[in-house]
Amino acid sequence: MQSTARLNKQLQAVEWYGSGLRILDQRYLPELVTHHLLTTVEDVAGAIQSMQVRGAPAIGIAAAYGVVLAARQRYAQSPLNWKTVIVDDITLLAESRPTAVNLAWALDKMRALFASLEGDPELFLLNTAKQIHQDDIDANFTMGDYGADLLGDARAVLTHCNAGALATGGYGTALGVIRSAVNRGLQQVYATETRPWSQGARLTVWELQQDNIPSILIADLAAGYLMQQGKVQWIIVGADRIAANGDTANKIGTYALATLARQHQLKTMIVAPSSTIDWNLPNGNKIPIEQRDPVELLPECYQSEASLVDAWNPVFDVTPAHLIDVIVTEKGVVMRPDIQRMKSLY
Amino acid sequence: MQSTARLNKQLQAVEWYGSGLRILDQRYLPELVTHHLLTTVEDVAGAIQSMQVRGAPAIGIAAAYGVVLAARQRYAQSPLNWKTVIVDDITLLAESRPTAVNLAWALDKMRALFASLEGDPELFLLNTAKQIHQDDIDANFTMGDYGADLLGDARAVLTHCNAGALATGGYGTALGVIRSAVNRGLQQVYATETRPWSQGARLTVWELQQDNIPSILIADLAAGYLMQQGKVQWIIVGADRIAANGDTANKIGTYALATLARQHQLKTMIVAPSSTIDWNLPNGNKIPIEQRDPVELLPECYQSEASLVDAWNPVFDVTPAHLIDVIVTEKGVVMRPDIQRMKSLY
Repeated sequence: MQSTARLNKQLQAVEWYGSGLRILDQRYLPELVTHHLLTTVEDVAGAIQSMQVRGAPAIGIAAAYGVVLAARQRYAQSPLNWKTVIVDDITLLAESRPTAVNLAWALDKMRALFASLEGDPELFLLNTAKQIHQDDIDANFTMGDYGADLLGDARAVLTHCNAGALATGGYGTALGVIRSAVNRGLQQVYATETRPWSQGARLTVWELQQDNIPSILIADLAAGYLMQQGKVQWIIVGADRIAANGDTANKIGTYALATLARQHQLKTMIVAPSSTIDWNLPNGNKIPIEQRDPVELLPECYQSEASLVDAWNPVFDVTPAHLIDVIVTEKGVVMRPDIQRMKSLY
Repeated sequence: MQSTARLNKQLQAVEWYGSGLRILDQRYLPELVTHHLLTTVEDVAGAIQSMQVRGAPAIGIAAAYGVVLAARQRYAQSPLNWKTVIVDDITLLAESRPTAVNLAWALDKMRALFASLEGDPELFLLNTAKQIHQDDIDANFTMGDYGADLLGDARAVLTHCNAGALATGGYGTALGVIRSAVNRGLQQVYATETRPWSQGARLTVWELQQDNIPSILIADLAAGYLMQQGKVQWIIVGADRIAANGDTANKIGTYALATLARQHQLKTMIVAPSSTIDWNLPNGNKIPIEQRDPVELLPECYQSEASLVDAWNPVFDVTPAHLIDVIVTEKGVVMRPDIQRMKSLY
């Protein structure tokens, strides 16, 4: 477990506490570091829906622990019948956010255990949830090394949204690569603000600061000028769902950044655990794109019924595989992904 | 003066009031509609520097009135010597913002009168300032028609920043075209938030609402997905300085939007009065790009000395002419601008 020594406990998005799941409420960062103890499956689903916990891998881990809490409740209520009634809880968790496939992946993994369980299921389910959590951390360290290997002598990178410790079991996907690369001499890390939720301004630069890594914040659309000025060599981001051909759903704006990067002959790297790959989707066209409440974008004065100002608030977009230079997973890397090359990760 | 009947007085950025220049303080919109009466040249320079007044044409107009206020002060203090001492005031105004050339253009126009003036200069200078203001409004109406002519059967457009009544003498450049096009049946107007100052979210959609025009706000980088989904046909923006070959400095992000538009085979229209063209610059390389305080981007918790989080805050970028489909001025339009075609506007 040498690798986990590098984890910063302050950046733990989710942590099992026996009585429940302790989460860092990411809505109030960086001003307030607030934790909640979630003791019911409804709590967990609510925390995912309201983005107290966010980031595709962290959502998957939280949902796995959510199944443990659901089983505890359901088994106490009806020891003979819990496997039937827990179905509603799993549906509740599954529907809390639509785009990240890690959520469905973790729920499938937990549900697969049910058939073999007899008696009180909590301990068995908890062990699997903890394993999902630990596997994610291990995967992050592996991806960190794989990704840093690819950066070569890049001096500066740009990341978008937060694909860090806060979005995962710990360490991070895109930020895991960046952490590993900084250890090897990467000089500058630029981060977009990432509107409308400002994950870059609120989470990414804060998280890097906790690990003593300097960063430079930019307005989202300043990325074009940044690239034009030759200030970065790579775009490094996470993913919420990767189709079988490499098409990748990630935070809204990733598609624009990858398009701009290609125009400037820069490279785009997607970093995500293999649980992010949805082998059921041949390409990105069918990835459901979550549309969140316009209120997240609209200043309060436009929120009345009479207002003529509306907002369009898709929070993900799909970057086609041909704009992606490399996908990094814990199972290996795929250069210039397409449906054939992606099969090496199956 | 039939055209001015269409001006919305509520959206007047600057207005001469005899005792001084009344400005709408754009820092507090849309929550608060606050006006200030500026009675000294220092007031005017400060209001421009702090972006109480913003938008290239409005800055030029404000500066022209600023010269009137400077002359009033200087002539009262030293009737024989005012033409010498006012030089410092003009420098103060000229240095209040670096990128918009309309500022220098208006100051040059005012200064050119000095030689012919005898006795109290205020009335003569005021007449010229008022003429600059009225000419800008007239130019906006002309450009509105020219631009709307070009849109053809476009259903929806995207604008960036605020190039509206609030940024000009009234009516607007990009928003002037959009107003005219809405009158002819344009269906949807999308506006970017325009970070970091949020001119889109705070000013553009508010301004359109005052004129009963519905609009849809998007996160800046959602523009890529918007284009990918075929939701807009044109990008319409203003300009802060246009070089002799058509290279155009405008709000940070314009370069990224024009690059994305070209990738999606959409069209980009620049709308600006001819006073925005800097014939002294053969191309955009030498346009000074204003870098503003990182504090405008940094949440307060990163503003301490010890913070490892910095920000890169250029507030303009330069879009090369080859990415621009048309430049609309009151003197006419230039399709696919280059140094030869631009000469028709000289």
